[in-house]
Amino acid sequence: MAIRPSQRNNTRLVGAGDTTIVLAHGFGTDQTAWRNQEPALAARHRVLLFDHVGAGHSDLSAYSPRRYGSLRSYALDLLHLLEELTLEHVIYVGHSMSGMIGVLAAIEEPRRFRKLILLGASPRYLDDEGYVGGFKREDLDGLYEAMQSNFHAWASGFAPIATANPDKPDLARDFAQTLAALRPDIGLHVARTTFESDHRRDLPALQIPTLVLQSQADIAVPVEVGAYLARHIPRAELQVLDATGHLPHWSAPERVTNEILSFAASP
Amino acid sequence: MAIRPSQRNNTRLVGAGDTTIVLAHGFGTDQTAWRNQEPALAARHRVLLFDHVGAGHSDLSAYSPRRYGSLRSYALDLLHLLEELTLEHVIYVGHSMSGMIGVLAAIEEPRRFRKLILLGASPRYLDDEGYVGGFKREDLDGLYEAMQSNFHAWASGFAPIATANPDKPDLARDFAQTLAALRPDIGLHVARTTFESDHRRDLPALQIPTLVLQSQADIAVPVEVGAYLARHIPRAELQVLDATGHLPHWSAPERVTNEILSFAASP
Repeated sequence: MAIRPSQRNNTRLVGAGDTTIVLAHGFGTDQTAWRNQEPALAARHRVLLFDHVGAGHSDLSAYSPRRYGSLRSYALDLLHLLEELTLEHVIYVGHSMSGMIGVLAAIEEPRRFRKLILLGASPRYLDDEGYVGGFKREDLDGLYEAMQSNFHAWASGFAPIATANPDKPDLARDFAQTLAALRPDIGLHVARTTFESDHRRDLPALQIPTLVLQSQADIAVPVEVGAYLARHIPRAELQVLDATGHLPHWSAPERVTNEILSFAASP
Repeated sequence: MAIRPSQRNNTRLVGAGDTTIVLAHGFGTDQTAWRNQEPALAARHRVLLFDHVGAGHSDLSAYSPRRYGSLRSYALDLLHLLEELTLEHVIYVGHSMSGMIGVLAAIEEPRRFRKLILLGASPRYLDDEGYVGGFKREDLDGLYEAMQSNFHAWASGFAPIATANPDKPDLARDFAQTLAALRPDIGLHVARTTFESDHRRDLPALQIPTLVLQSQADIAVPVEVGAYLARHIPRAELQVLDATGHLPHWSAPERVTNEILSFAASP
């Protein structure tokens, strides 16, 4: 008997309201990444939280490098989850890799989505001719090599760089912990799948109103990338947050919560 | 008998040529920070290296929080050093806090300087109305608190954030080491002096041709700051380097060397 998507993805529905906000976590975290946003959002809306397969308390047996060799598989998982829960017109908030996952899902089944919020998302991480992604080939190869040779050492070095809040060492510590909770082979494969992805050509097909939320000094997503997203998604606007690092929902939790609430409330 | 500036600042002159390039290190490093640039620069030019008082092998007994309570004192040290060595028309390269030190010195005695290169420099680190500096009051207070409570723990957390090259963990390790080599009380005081400085109003008085070299994803210097410098220094141009982090001379050594050589050679 097939496992239900809601089980596979360790799904949790909290709060109540006419609108459902879906919070989709990024690489190296799980649904607990939204702990700072959850109370305020659930006080006004229904909130759906889940773990991508391979992360948190998802069904790890469902993970295979072959199936999850592209972000499209995660997008399919998301659509199956929304289908099972009969959800339509959701406000989808996707952090990091979940940004493009939401874009792909919303192109596939637009009726499921009313609005998208892309937080620290990128359609391509690798630089290209006329495109600043933030990483060069040798950067990425060096990254994979470090992950492979000692995953935990890599995690404790990467976490402070990604969180980029020198005055808040707790953020780096917390992120190092959720990174280290990944099974190393899965961590490496998800990193590869994400960093090697290129979804620039998908962007023009997205018809859902989209808010691109972009942080500053984000090692994974230079400001140019946020600008690129806003330029190529037909109904997008860009908001550069007064926050640094790749996890603004941790470093500037109230600002992110307020952006979500106000974009959800906008006509 | 007064100690000579060249002794006090552990000065070293290498290479030969009609032009002297002065390499001034930033916070948390010393003259060894230029090890990647030194050979190529010294092959064509005379190169002056030194340690600011409080750093490297400078005369630590010359340090006092009172004297070094402002970047102007470092600028005076620099002018005394150039005077002792009878140097004029130098190409000055200042990293981080040494950027503004060079600006202040070149305003005071323009004849000593032919060109300035400001690498990851900032006239003000704290945000202000209509000005993005990158840090908020509480960020800086949190930073000082962390430095004070455990300087070495702070150094090992700050280093990867500042270097921001997840694929090159050696950079973070090296920077953590030079940070940890600081006497903690001096380290904290220099950090305060730098981060609390505001030299925006000095910029228009600088008459020397200036190259602003700016990295990406630099936690201490957002791209806006480089743009601000270029806008407010009368004869400045901005070059955003294809490099991340606050130490581009470490993470993209050849690119930085080439920029210095080509700016030195330009008419």
